[in-house]
Parts: sequence; structure tokens; C-alpha cells
Amino acid sequence: MPYVNIKITREGATPEQKATLIKGVTDLLYTVLNKDPATTFVVIDEVALEDWGVGGLPVDAYRRKVGEKS
Amino acid sequence: MPYVNIKITREGATPEQKATLIKGVTDLLYTVLNKDPATTFVVIDEVALEDWGVGGLPVDAYRRKVGEKS
Amino acid sequence: MPYVNIKITREGATPEQKATLIKGVTDLLYTVLNKDPATTFVVIDEVALEDWGVGGLPVDAYRRKVGEKS
Amino acid sequence: MPYVNIKITREGATPEQKATLIKGVTDLLYTVLNKDPATTFVVIDEVALEDWGVGGLPVDAYRRKVGEKS
Amino acid sequence: MPYVNIKITREGATPEQKATLIKGVTDLLYTVLNKDPATTFVVIDEVALEDWGVGGLPVDAYRRKVGEKS
Amino acid sequence: MPYVNIKITREGATPEQKATLIKGVTDLLYTVLNKDPATTFVVIDEVALEDWGVGGLPVDAYRRKVGEKS
Repeated sequence: MPYVNIKITREGATPEQKATLIKGVTDLLYTVLNKDPATTFVVIDEVALEDWGVGGLPVDAYRRKVGEKS
Repeated sequence: MPYVNIKITREGATPEQKATLIKGVTDLLYTVLNKDPATTFVVIDEVALEDWGVGGLPVDAYRRKVGEKS
Repeated sequence: MPYVNIKITREGATPEQKATLIKGVTDLLYTVLNKDPATTFVVIDEVALEDWGVGGLPVDAYRRKVGEKS
Repeated sequence: MPYVNIKITREGATPEQKATLIKGVTDLLYTVLNKDPATTFVVIDEVALEDWGVGGLPVDAYRRKVGEKS
Repeated sequence: MPYVNIKITREGATPEQKATLIKGVTDLLYTVLNKDPATTFVVIDEVALEDWGVGGLPVDAYRRKVGEKS
Repeated sequence: MPYVNIKITREGATPEQKATLIKGVTDLLYTVLNKDPATTFVVIDEVALEDWGVGGLPVDAYRRKVGEKS
């Protein structure tokens, strides 16, 4: 009965992409650890850019600084 | 000084229901472990249906498949 | 399909007390929001005193300072 | 590669204040534990007042009762 | 820069299985959302059976009751 | 009443270093957002190297690959 929490920045992930994440993680736990999909929970949190920091900066400021995209 | 996080799908829980959850969990921790309510935090997260997966599917797709309601 | 995480300081909670917490929270979610116990997860984390801070101090130092117990 | 999650009640924290939190926590981890800022993540969650409980009450009801502000 | 937390019951997952989970989740986020693996964090928590509840019971009691394994 | 969770790899952080983190985060929230230290909780989780992944690898394998230290 795994519980998986995925946090990503809010940048337009579609319901279809989220469904693919949910299926992918659930399949992975079944394949690797034989966890029953019926009791595998996956919760996705989308986090606003201003609420996510890396390198000591909010994500958008960080990206402007280092030219990163992820 | 417990910290409790309750995640539920976003389906119209009212402020009154949330207040009942907060009181119920706080009382429980006092009764069972003698935890001081004044330093018991309860945080409720409501999660959109498309962001919660079970059985490898987003909740609404899962419910359509198995006829479950919870 | 709620997910509940309870964090308490590690101070000797017994398996029986944990089972009481699990049952109490699960019953509460069923009573208040009609959540199916079969898909209600409760995860308890016990946190070492040195890893929990309040008032700017680790819990044990804080308790010595304010004479609190919880 | 620390991961820090800061949960606060939603009461008008500005992007500038959030950026200050992100920088402050990142600097702290560098200073105390020599953690590389480039791999330090900080995620801020703002929680609605009705979703945060303390003292067995939602925050606003709790504040009315005890005259607290924080 | 995703952050993924996987919680499973503590039942002997090997370092190799954990490495497979880490790789699988990271690849999934790259494939579905083009997330850079270099800034994808995965944290695995193994939870003692007595600390995980489902159906209002600790996992081992729940399994004895329903004959489930997952 | 903020709640802060700091996750770091388990690599020998001392109780004194943890106390410095607790004080630093608490002071920061007071300075930036005027949060009362008495109701600021900080919880530190130390995560085993095999349980933390980055770049699709457990931390120690990742460090061997890229020569990183953090």
C-alpha cells in the first residue's frame, strides 16, 4: 500500500500527463516491489513558481540566472 | 506537539466538517497520548481529483471503473 | 481515499496506542466525510526529540525552558 | 541536496517575502551543513485558515479565542 | 525540478530495488514532462508495519483480517 | 504557526548543528513574516543515502558519477 507524492512546478501539466505519471509510478511499484495497484496512492502537487526555490532563488529567478529549464 | 496532515480529495468538504476533523484529531491525540491541544497542529489538504491516483488511474477514472465511492 | 500523516515526538508510544490512533482517525473520516476505511491510509512518524524544534529550540531544551510537557 | 518544506497560513505573504525565506533557508543550510545551494530545494505551501487547526480549532476561531496572532 | 516522496512499508526492499525505483520515477518525469534528471529528487521512506494503518487497523492486523498482501 | 520540514541526507549532522538549523529557521520566519516562535515547529528528517535519489541514481552512486558533494 504505497503512498507516492509528486511535487512539480505548476507549468501546465495536462490531466493526460498526470494520468500517465499516476499509471507509470503505480506500474513501477508493482513491477519492482509487487505492490498491489489497488492500494497504491499517488498524489500530485503543482507548486507555483514563486513558491519553489533552488539555488537560493525562486525558480523563475534561478532560471534567468542559470539559463536552466526543468 | 503533534503535527497531523490530512489529505482528502476535493469534493466539497465544508468549513464545519473541517473543523470537526480538526477537533476530532486533536481530541484523539490528547486522549491516547496526552498531547497538549495547544501545541497540536492539523493541516488539511484538499487534492483535485485529477491529482490523486489509485489503481493506476486518476480517482474519477478509477471510480468509473470499479464503481467505488470514497 | 484519505491519507493521514501523524508526526509525534518519539517518547514510547506503544503499538496499542498507535493502533488506537489509526482506528480513531479512520473512524473520524468515515463519520465526518463518509470516507471508506478500506481506502484510508494512516502513517505515523515518530521523530527524535533532537529533530523536533519549537520556540527556536529542540524539544527537550524547549521543555526545560518553559516547563511544558506535550 | 536538502529539501525544505515551509507551511504557513495564507495571509498575504508577498513574492519578495517568499524569496527572502528561500534565500534565508538556503544560506542557513550552506552555513551550518555546507549544503550546496544549487541542490537545495525549498517549497512553500500557503494553507487557508480553515485548513489549519491548532488547539482543536481552525486558526481563525483559535485566534478569536486566545487573542493570538502568528 | 521535481521532488518525489515514496512511502512503502518496511519489508525488506533492497538497495537495488530502491535504485530501480529512483531510476524509474526519474525517467518517467523526464519522459512525460521533460524534467531534468539532474534536478529530480526522489526520497524513499520505509515505514514500520505498526506505523501504517489501513481499514482502521495497523497493516499486519489488516492483512490477517482480509488476507491481503501489498 | 508555521511548520517546517527539513530533509537532509544522513551524514553525521550533530545535535548542535540541528539546534542551529531549528533556531535559524525559526528566527527567519519571525524576521520575515513576524511568525511567533512559540508556535513555529521545525522537523528534521535524516534520510539514508540509499533512500535519496538524484539524477536517477542513489546519492552515493550519483556522487561517484559527478564528483559532487552536498
